[in-house]
Amino acid sequence: MQRNILTVPIRKIGDASASSEQDLVAVEEPLEIRLAGRNVAITMRTPGNDEELAAGFLCTEGILRNPSQITGISEPERNIVDVLLADETGVDFERLERHFYVSSSCGVCGKASIGALEATGCPALIRNLPVIPSSVIHGLPGELRSRQAVFDRTGGLHAAALFDSSGRLLNLREDVGRHNAVDKLIGAAFLGDSLPLNDHILLVSGRVSFELVQKALMAGIAVLAAVGAPSSLAVEVALRFGMTLAGFVREGRYNVYSGDWRLR
Amino acid sequence: MQRNILTVPIRKIGDASASSEQDLVAVEEPLEIRLAGRNVAITMRTPGNDEELAAGFLCTEGILRNPSQITGISEPERNIVDVLLADETGVDFERLERHFYVSSSCGVCGKASIGALEATGCPALIRNLPVIPSSVIHGLPGELRSRQAVFDRTGGLHAAALFDSSGRLLNLREDVGRHNAVDKLIGAAFLGDSLPLNDHILLVSGRVSFELVQKALMAGIAVLAAVGAPSSLAVEVALRFGMTLAGFVREGRYNVYSGDWRLR
Repeated sequence: MQRNILTVPIRKIGDASASSEQDLVAVEEPLEIRLAGRNVAITMRTPGNDEELAAGFLCTEGILRNPSQITGISEPERNIVDVLLADETGVDFERLERHFYVSSSCGVCGKASIGALEATGCPALIRNLPVIPSSVIHGLPGELRSRQAVFDRTGGLHAAALFDSSGRLLNLREDVGRHNAVDKLIGAAFLGDSLPLNDHILLVSGRVSFELVQKALMAGIAVLAAVGAPSSLAVEVALRFGMTLAGFVREGRYNVYSGDWRLR
Repeated sequence: MQRNILTVPIRKIGDASASSEQDLVAVEEPLEIRLAGRNVAITMRTPGNDEELAAGFLCTEGILRNPSQITGISEPERNIVDVLLADETGVDFERLERHFYVSSSCGVCGKASIGALEATGCPALIRNLPVIPSSVIHGLPGELRSRQAVFDRTGGLHAAALFDSSGRLLNLREDVGRHNAVDKLIGAAFLGDSLPLNDHILLVSGRVSFELVQKALMAGIAVLAAVGAPSSLAVEVALRFGMTLAGFVREGRYNVYSGDWRLR
């Protein structure tokens, strides 16, 4: 009954053998995100937590600032969610169209410049918060894996998890798109009115692009850790905004690219 | 002097040690793609082979059909490429705008339906071509790694490689975005007027989303192999169009999700 995993028949080929088996694949389907009835984005995602995804997307893209702007989230059809607004006057729909011409919540068609990010008005990080013992960072991937194992039997999903400053896992989301996993995580916090997440840690299972740093910044997250490598622009933006960025967090080691003063 | 790798200072943290070192990160920068002077997309990419990327993007998105439509590719400024056209009458710029509203060459804001893909008119695959010995598939990742090692010292790059039907590596591209690596590869073939690539094999280093299958289809590639897992929609589209799709190609084994008749 899970909509996020599909069973498909495959041929399993070994060095000298072949057999017919069933395999599990992660479901990828388009989701149309509407804001007050207007189409603002289509994203390829793993079904589930679609309301969080829509809310998180609108939050991390700087379109909605406060969960009280949302009066409800409906699903008029399968694979469509509509975020309903109390009052449309605060939302610049024209800006939205311009915005999605060059952006779209993906690493591909990203914001063209850091200047644009500053103009969006992401919340300031607090320089001295949180302070994280190094052992907490070491422990994050193990904690993620122990929880992820329940869901990811497909090998095809990215994970994002939110931790408190003592390393306790608070929430976890998985998706075929890493930006979607982060949007779902931040969307849940946004809908719960718990932004900014100043004293939290975000862990992502893969690499860190500009886009993920941007989304974390929009949620006020000061510590971003990744199992994979960061890109040059991810490092540059983290340095510019005073975010702590750790990469290659695995096997008892990690690299700190920015903001090492928060670690001890 | 390489623009695709950047050296950054880091703190390297071990279990009980820490040191200051230099690390290499993959460069991520925006590229604005223009068609006859008009902005059609901004993509976050690793600099290098930008002309191929622009041409491949316009080809795999179904906007250009023939390299003879292109009279030149200029770089009016850093991080901007302009694809110049012999004749603009064949290009529906209005469709282009509608197109990028819901699409944009990324797995995120993908085409909403397989129907739209069929309407784009991707070249038909030839059912009986190519026929590939199973040993060729087994050998692809090793071949890729032996060539990739030269470039990827950052851990942050996706690779895509084109092979002939005997498993000989013909071309290789790496990028922070996997779709960009594929666009560069197909763009090089498109500019060389060697599409469709009916008897070639495409190998990608990571997972396979809908988008990568779509791009391979647009180039007429009948065999797509991946080191990682496919998504449900990748499998569905491969089945629909008769493409051979192999996943988890590593350690002497792989899974065939579609089109196993091409393998023996």
